[in-house]
Amino acid sequence: MSDEDVVSLAEGSGGADMTELIDSFKFTNRGRWGNWDNDAATVNIGASKRLLFTTDSYVVTPVFFPGGDIGRIAACGTINDLAVMGAEPLGLSVALVLEEGYPKRDLMRIISSIDKVSVACGVPVVTGDTKVMERGKVDGIVINTAGVGLASAKSLLGRKPKVGDKVILSGGLGEHAVALLSRRFDFECDIVSDGKPILKEMRAVRGRIKLAKDVTRGGLAATTNEVCKKYGIGMLLDESRIPVKEGVRKAAELLGIDPYELACEGRFMCVAEHRNAKKVEGALRRFNREAAVIGEVTSGGDVIVQTFLGKRMMPQPRGRIVPRIC
Amino acid sequence: MSDEDVVSLAEGSGGADMTELIDSFKFTNRGRWGNWDNDAATVNIGASKRLLFTTDSYVVTPVFFPGGDIGRIAACGTINDLAVMGAEPLGLSVALVLEEGYPKRDLMRIISSIDKVSVACGVPVVTGDTKVMERGKVDGIVINTAGVGLASAKSLLGRKPKVGDKVILSGGLGEHAVALLSRRFDFECDIVSDGKPILKEMRAVRGRIKLAKDVTRGGLAATTNEVCKKYGIGMLLDESRIPVKEGVRKAAELLGIDPYELACEGRFMCVAEHRNAKKVEGALRRFNREAAVIGEVTSGGDVIVQTFLGKRMMPQPRGRIVPRIC
Repeated sequence: MSDEDVVSLAEGSGGADMTELIDSFKFTNRGRWGNWDNDAATVNIGASKRLLFTTDSYVVTPVFFPGGDIGRIAACGTINDLAVMGAEPLGLSVALVLEEGYPKRDLMRIISSIDKVSVACGVPVVTGDTKVMERGKVDGIVINTAGVGLASAKSLLGRKPKVGDKVILSGGLGEHAVALLSRRFDFECDIVSDGKPILKEMRAVRGRIKLAKDVTRGGLAATTNEVCKKYGIGMLLDESRIPVKEGVRKAAELLGIDPYELACEGRFMCVAEHRNAKKVEGALRRFNREAAVIGEVTSGGDVIVQTFLGKRMMPQPRGRIVPRIC
Repeated sequence: MSDEDVVSLAEGSGGADMTELIDSFKFTNRGRWGNWDNDAATVNIGASKRLLFTTDSYVVTPVFFPGGDIGRIAACGTINDLAVMGAEPLGLSVALVLEEGYPKRDLMRIISSIDKVSVACGVPVVTGDTKVMERGKVDGIVINTAGVGLASAKSLLGRKPKVGDKVILSGGLGEHAVALLSRRFDFECDIVSDGKPILKEMRAVRGRIKLAKDVTRGGLAATTNEVCKKYGIGMLLDESRIPVKEGVRKAAELLGIDPYELACEGRFMCVAEHRNAKKVEGALRRFNREAAVIGEVTSGGDVIVQTFLGKRMMPQPRGRIVPRIC
């Protein structure tokens, strides 16, 4: 079979290749649901209530890394997908696929990490599933979490941005990916994963923003391009304002990866009207002092970065990026 | 590490070992949810509405088998978990974990199977996720489906059975497991998988039953024992009334497996008051002529089978049973 006939690693990496694969899936029945191309799908239940529903599988390697583990990421990821839509998460599912011979001590540590996030956020784990595959048939552990949440028609986010709106980032980029890769490739580094629930941050700002999107696979490059494509807008970002820690910059250089394509697990980008932008930035800085207005919405269809040397395009990532980061 | 320190295949097989593993998971926050030990968890949203939420991962091998494939099973399984609770399914999520190099032709066939079930049942696929693991790190494809549904306080099933209530089975046992195993072990057999949505059957009978449970991993033995343990009841089943096709009996003998421990993917067991039992049986026979009243609720805590030779216990399955059947 030729390369186009089989699934590639790039098709799981959150960039353009993945979008193309997913677009080739023909699910013909969407019923009354909307936002099925968003972080969580939505459906009306009653006049003003919206039910939200989302899912993610986690295949991270290594399973334990500086600042977290697969369990923490699996719980945070799904809570965050609901939170960025403006919802209050109601409950989580946890489905485990385990390799025969997987150490129970590691399993219990991972379960405990999920439980800690669940308790801290007040989002219960309410249903689950456990499957075991024979030794060698799956690499240790794969976790799926799905989540349901509620929003009011008014609190649900996802309003079309307009030219001049501001783009705000909730904290430094790429810390999750770099922390994970420092363990995977065994290089020294003082960066820890940013993986965390962003529910409190979202509660603090969701009344003042038009939309939010968590910065995961494909990093800021994927997140901004997806939003621009969806709403037919462009963005002009100011590189000097985009928070990237020195350790992340150095690791990205070492690995030959664009830091803007590195995944986070506890950061989001949001868009607010000009008049609200400073308030949103201020509110987010109470959680992370690197939160910043990083640019604005333009009429062009591209994401442009203003650098010290001039303007450059920041395209939707394509190709392998970094596999199994979340 | 000793055997007790690592995960065994038995712990994914739906029997007593799996229950013990799951019981060791300490999820400390259940919030306002109930039924987290049932086929789908439930929470009140509004005075009389109940939201239902469930998840399952599918690791079946082979992926294609007589009468179905992993996609059909993944869609049916989650729809059925909602249906047996008395709910109307609202939407499904589909999360794929793919092996690098997985044939796209097979993937599209699987997606199409999911879509067919979705369309036939009117249950849309509304959200999803795609991850790719490196070649050799996962055996082809793993699918997780989660589902949400709605029920009224009145239609929600799960009322405690009383002595004398009748136990009814919606069709013949073990056809899914035998069809799958005939392909896995390459033996000749005319059995096809029973995998199908049971939503229509459930709609036809849910007003006349107290509870229903789909017969999946661990087969009728697991399903009946779980219900008995949960409600502190016993069951006396009449072997001559339990529908098992000749081909299933023969294959089970060949494989050395108790047919009552074989998984189905389109059958359920339900409990109805004596006065409703014949009506339920009649309604189910319009879908499958093997549907039958197979026994009754007793006060003892065990599941007893009345055979030609006398009574025998049908305990909760323990040990390996059959791995990767769903």
